[in-house]
Amino acid sequence: MQFSVDRSVLVEAISWSTRAVPQRPPVAILSGLHLQAANGVLTISAFDYETSVKVEVPASIDEPGDVLVSGRMLAEMVKALPNRPVEFTKVDEKSLSLVCGTANFNLATMPVGDYPTLPAFPELCGSVEASELSNAVKQVSIAASKDDTLPLLTGVMVEIDGDNITLLATDRYRLAQRDLKWKPADPSFSTKALVRAKILSDVANTITSAGDISLALSAGNGTGTNDIVGFTAGERSTTSNLMSGEYPPVRRLFPTETLTYAVIDRQGLIDATKRMKLVADRNTPVRLHFTEEGLTLNASNNEEAQGSDFLQVSLRGEEITTAFNPNYLLEGLQAINTPYVRISFTQPTKPAVLHGQEKIDGEVAEDFRYLLMPIRYGV
Amino acid sequence: MQFSVDRSVLVEAISWSTRAVPQRPPVAILSGLHLQAANGVLTISAFDYETSVKVEVPASIDEPGDVLVSGRMLAEMVKALPNRPVEFTKVDEKSLSLVCGTANFNLATMPVGDYPTLPAFPELCGSVEASELSNAVKQVSIAASKDDTLPLLTGVMVEIDGDNITLLATDRYRLAQRDLKWKPADPSFSTKALVRAKILSDVANTITSAGDISLALSAGNGTGTNDIVGFTAGERSTTSNLMSGEYPPVRRLFPTETLTYAVIDRQGLIDATKRMKLVADRNTPVRLHFTEEGLTLNASNNEEAQGSDFLQVSLRGEEITTAFNPNYLLEGLQAINTPYVRISFTQPTKPAVLHGQEKIDGEVAEDFRYLLMPIRYGV
Repeated sequence: MQFSVDRSVLVEAISWSTRAVPQRPPVAILSGLHLQAANGVLTISAFDYETSVKVEVPASIDEPGDVLVSGRMLAEMVKALPNRPVEFTKVDEKSLSLVCGTANFNLATMPVGDYPTLPAFPELCGSVEASELSNAVKQVSIAASKDDTLPLLTGVMVEIDGDNITLLATDRYRLAQRDLKWKPADPSFSTKALVRAKILSDVANTITSAGDISLALSAGNGTGTNDIVGFTAGERSTTSNLMSGEYPPVRRLFPTETLTYAVIDRQGLIDATKRMKLVADRNTPVRLHFTEEGLTLNASNNEEAQGSDFLQVSLRGEEITTAFNPNYLLEGLQAINTPYVRISFTQPTKPAVLHGQEKIDGEVAEDFRYLLMPIRYGV
Repeated sequence: MQFSVDRSVLVEAISWSTRAVPQRPPVAILSGLHLQAANGVLTISAFDYETSVKVEVPASIDEPGDVLVSGRMLAEMVKALPNRPVEFTKVDEKSLSLVCGTANFNLATMPVGDYPTLPAFPELCGSVEASELSNAVKQVSIAASKDDTLPLLTGVMVEIDGDNITLLATDRYRLAQRDLKWKPADPSFSTKALVRAKILSDVANTITSAGDISLALSAGNGTGTNDIVGFTAGERSTTSNLMSGEYPPVRRLFPTETLTYAVIDRQGLIDATKRMKLVADRNTPVRLHFTEEGLTLNASNNEEAQGSDFLQVSLRGEEITTAFNPNYLLEGLQAINTPYVRISFTQPTKPAVLHGQEKIDGEVAEDFRYLLMPIRYGV
């Protein structure tokens, strides 16, 4: 095997692929990155039995072949090389040579035969604008659970119905929902898939190409669920096993009526909440008191420090006092990308709903909503 | 006590002062920052019995007074405030109020009487250009020991002789020496002071004012050493207890003769050494083989990976092969600020000396030298 590749192209492709190489692999072979050179293309791939990644880059190939080497070591090596073509040569069964300018590296290889075969890429079922998907995933994935006590809640529920995709995530304290349009291959296509939030975020965060990202789902085992999801954008593709299990019927948590709502300058509320967070203990909330005059925020960690702030708001309905976890409130506010936020209430002890709003007296943006559970605090 | 201060001035002053507030104070009161308002000036100070800091900022004072509050909490609060004047009011014996725009904070105070008195600032003995001192400290402090097994070696030896200051530091594996000119108050002044490298680096890294920094030393207890060092630049001053003990006579380690030297492109050698470092195990060196043709570097961690590189050099004297710890070599190369580096040798098993050089065939820069112990490696 012998080929050469442009170094900057290689750095980008290998950095991207090594995301799927486990930091502490259960077996040594999973620390590998598989390089295959054939037909003018170098294919770089990795698979840890759950997630697979594959990227293709143009290569000048003298002798086709393939090799398995340590992903992290290779990534560090190519980053440290000068900006010249990198020539790869399989020296023997145990060694790969890299030559770049005056620099030489020799790297031990692992037996390719022992490496797991990547799953077949599932059937494409449509495409969505990459930046649109990326934004939607960022908005929703914050609400997914970070701990594994309820594994299902570490996923993002992807519901597809015709040309509409809905993303949903919750950790029981808040619930985020984002709707977006896409281009399904079959206009009557409808399905549900529970994708690990981490995988979805990884895909969203590493989209570099403008244009579309294609979504693929493999047919499931007759249970109505699909067992593998695939994403492909440009020369990069990712697959991941879907999570299985009954995702809770969370959509019904959104209240159907609104008795009170307030429209607030979003950045002002973010800044004030950050201040209150400084003096809120880990388990004390930030209290919000909405009146005709405005919104008073306050928080304290008893003896040591107290804080308060005041913001102008446009209030419709009764005065209301409630309390939230400041981190969950902040993450919701930061997921909204309009100048104003509308917070809608039924009762102080019931969940509130956040929506973005372009103008103080305008309509809410319907594509994103963030439900937030209040915290009860002392009398 | 009541006064107001510009918020951006306050942020900078408090961030700087809280460096001297211990992260995990042995007694709670040392977590404090002392605020004193009098005569149009707010003085912010902290002292942990070893290092003291003091900074003065202009304030509009309605009622003079002083107060002791948590340094870290205050630092976070002022950073989170909007950019308006911040009004401080001592509410009662236990509470300080901050008001800034619509934002309010209340912060518990600690008893000022229990806080240690800052040491008297020692007598100024001269001044040096701040950026010059900052560069010199950065060059030398890398060679000071990071661990406390030999506490003396965590210091930087400051030797003053007339208008010359020499800084020396070693961790037994390398030794850095930097000479610089200064303006002594007394041209015949001569002394030695062992200053903690951490303190010296802190002072050097936080110099923001152009112009001069003044150095102060208190007279010692008759042992010929001084017991306190002070630095003052603009409105900021720092003191620190000097370290006591007999610093080893390290200057004599620099070889008096040079049998061989090589002049090398500094950035090229840095890049090549970084590459070799990737494949060098924690305890394996990078080997350097100098010949008329050039410098060959190589390193390996046995089975897994090997690397080599080649650089043009200008060699005077015999061919030589030696080996260094790649980190220590890199730190020395990075401390030099000229395009070329000269490495001088007597024998492969004896220390080498690095000097900066502006031109490949020019003279060495005499103000900085870095001695590096070779590592013996297998036959």
